[in-house]
Amino acid sequence: MTAGSGGMDRVVDCARRIGDLDSAAMDAALRRQAELTKPAGSLGRLEEVAVRIAGITGLRRASLRQRAIIVMAADHGVAEEGVSAYPQEVTAQMVLNFLGGGAAINVLARAVGARVVVVDMGVAAELANHPDLVVAKIARGTRDFARGPAMRREQAIEAIEAGIRVLDEQARQGLDVVGTGEMGIGNTTAASAIASVFTGKAPGEITGRGTGIDDATLAAKVAVIERAIELNHPDPADPIDVLHKVGGFEIAGLVGVILAAAARRIPVIVDGFISTAAALVAAGICPAVTAHLIAAHRSAEIGHRPMLDHLGLDPLLDLGLRLGEGTGAALAMHLVDAALRIPDEMATFGEAGVSRTG
Amino acid sequence: MTAGSGGMDRVVDCARRIGDLDSAAMDAALRRQAELTKPAGSLGRLEEVAVRIAGITGLRRASLRQRAIIVMAADHGVAEEGVSAYPQEVTAQMVLNFLGGGAAINVLARAVGARVVVVDMGVAAELANHPDLVVAKIARGTRDFARGPAMRREQAIEAIEAGIRVLDEQARQGLDVVGTGEMGIGNTTAASAIASVFTGKAPGEITGRGTGIDDATLAAKVAVIERAIELNHPDPADPIDVLHKVGGFEIAGLVGVILAAAARRIPVIVDGFISTAAALVAAGICPAVTAHLIAAHRSAEIGHRPMLDHLGLDPLLDLGLRLGEGTGAALAMHLVDAALRIPDEMATFGEAGVSRTG
Repeated sequence: MTAGSGGMDRVVDCARRIGDLDSAAMDAALRRQAELTKPAGSLGRLEEVAVRIAGITGLRRASLRQRAIIVMAADHGVAEEGVSAYPQEVTAQMVLNFLGGGAAINVLARAVGARVVVVDMGVAAELANHPDLVVAKIARGTRDFARGPAMRREQAIEAIEAGIRVLDEQARQGLDVVGTGEMGIGNTTAASAIASVFTGKAPGEITGRGTGIDDATLAAKVAVIERAIELNHPDPADPIDVLHKVGGFEIAGLVGVILAAAARRIPVIVDGFISTAAALVAAGICPAVTAHLIAAHRSAEIGHRPMLDHLGLDPLLDLGLRLGEGTGAALAMHLVDAALRIPDEMATFGEAGVSRTG
Repeated sequence: MTAGSGGMDRVVDCARRIGDLDSAAMDAALRRQAELTKPAGSLGRLEEVAVRIAGITGLRRASLRQRAIIVMAADHGVAEEGVSAYPQEVTAQMVLNFLGGGAAINVLARAVGARVVVVDMGVAAELANHPDLVVAKIARGTRDFARGPAMRREQAIEAIEAGIRVLDEQARQGLDVVGTGEMGIGNTTAASAIASVFTGKAPGEITGRGTGIDDATLAAKVAVIERAIELNHPDPADPIDVLHKVGGFEIAGLVGVILAAAARRIPVIVDGFISTAAALVAAGICPAVTAHLIAAHRSAEIGHRPMLDHLGLDPLLDLGLRLGEGTGAALAMHLVDAALRIPDEMATFGEAGVSRTG
């Protein structure tokens, strides 16, 4: 933990509250699985998830009634380098789309009964007030990290703290499980840079096509990340250093969401490529956090696999998704819910009068 | 199609009604995907599923309101050879568990809003009447196919016809999507034999541990399948020959369910190892059926992958499941439903005022 430096009190305090998995609850959950009318282990990863959630929550039989996907949005100065297929104005336009209920995440969250919490962490435009928009704007977008740090160190800390506050407020409203989501034109460039620094892989090995760029733009994107890392020297032993130099405000906000949820023993379903970059930073601040994370899916972004491997996470889904917004987290939430319904609703061998192994 | 032989009229008629995918509906579905506020292709396999379902149903915007998992149960004479970890009586006990709502499939079907239709295709016990039990019993279990054909050829046809009638009755009640499921102690032995005959792989390459047998029992199971194939000479060019010699009544019933659903343009979500054996037989009778199938998941059974490859199906989930009952189909049904909600509920670029690729 290198998080002890100035201004980090709230972040350090949050990270300190992150405990280990509750092994007594996990043992009880395992014993329960063995009593249910099915061959031991026959529900594969659903059983593993149910036991893990018992460990996270400390509850022998948890249920996930209150669900949220927290979608954090921000802009990226590095978009000026032409790394995305879409213009920067799309970030703000998509925030309005989220608030209007018309984006993919709205549809998939509705399908699983989760509320969508939209947070402006640093959109470059001034957004009109909206009752459902949480405003935690640190600045109007980051600076171009190909020319210097994306943000000041204090801003990175401020953004993490804002993420902690967002999660704490959601917990006050009632929250049994949270999925992470994000929107920000240019943010696969930031996430690729973060991934490169933490995994030690070269930008060329870890950088993909984001929303769908062509070969020339991909080559330019890799070159931008190489330049940014050479110029800024982000230090993987100091996660806040990495975050402020090559991160983004929505990524920093999600670091706070992840830490605060883990501190409250609320399971976190980590979406795709960008969310996993936030998880890498969170795990840098507090390694114990990874036990509280469930990886939703393997993204189509080539860099996602080494990031998940670095964290030791095995995703539930592999559907070629590359949208972000929390869409994979919403889909995986159904599986996590299903995993918990099994021990809660299934009959035992004794109850159903079914013979065990002959 | 080798299905023209005696007594097959209803089966042949059903197979003849299976059409190709509707390319106009698929084109329209593809165009719709391109209008939605997301980068083209960014929802990966969800987009592919939505387009495929348009092709199956012929509807530009289908929705899956009425859902069922059809769970067919039967016993297997080959269980006498000691190929399973559970005694035969468990088949009947689990049917009662399904009717009581306490099995895994009940829980997972409830989670996705699907009704569970339980069918006795050939359980060895006499089951008490129950308002929710569909009785289509061909016989009290098959004969031991290590000593001769599992059933008479006419019984195989009768069982397929019974499956067609079950699906037709469900369609009359209202059915937009169906998942297949099964229960039958010993039925991984039958499914492995079917898989071996159709894929041409040796029993040793395709036979797994079913509900969880040890090494010695696995070796015995492989030997039983080798003996059965050598003794009965099932002919892969004649799917009914394979089915009656080494199949089972619930597998034959599912062949009928699959054919009848495809004939009615109702998408079929094929569960795991046993259900895929039924799909192999159905595809043998009518190759056009495979376009109407969605593979739910890759089972932990080692033989499942070559079966899926043989059919050209790529499953949506890979969760290490090996329970059957339709559990994987119920989990995948949420993904299929989500895939269809996307074009139905998402805003277009025009509606949301979001800029396209810059």
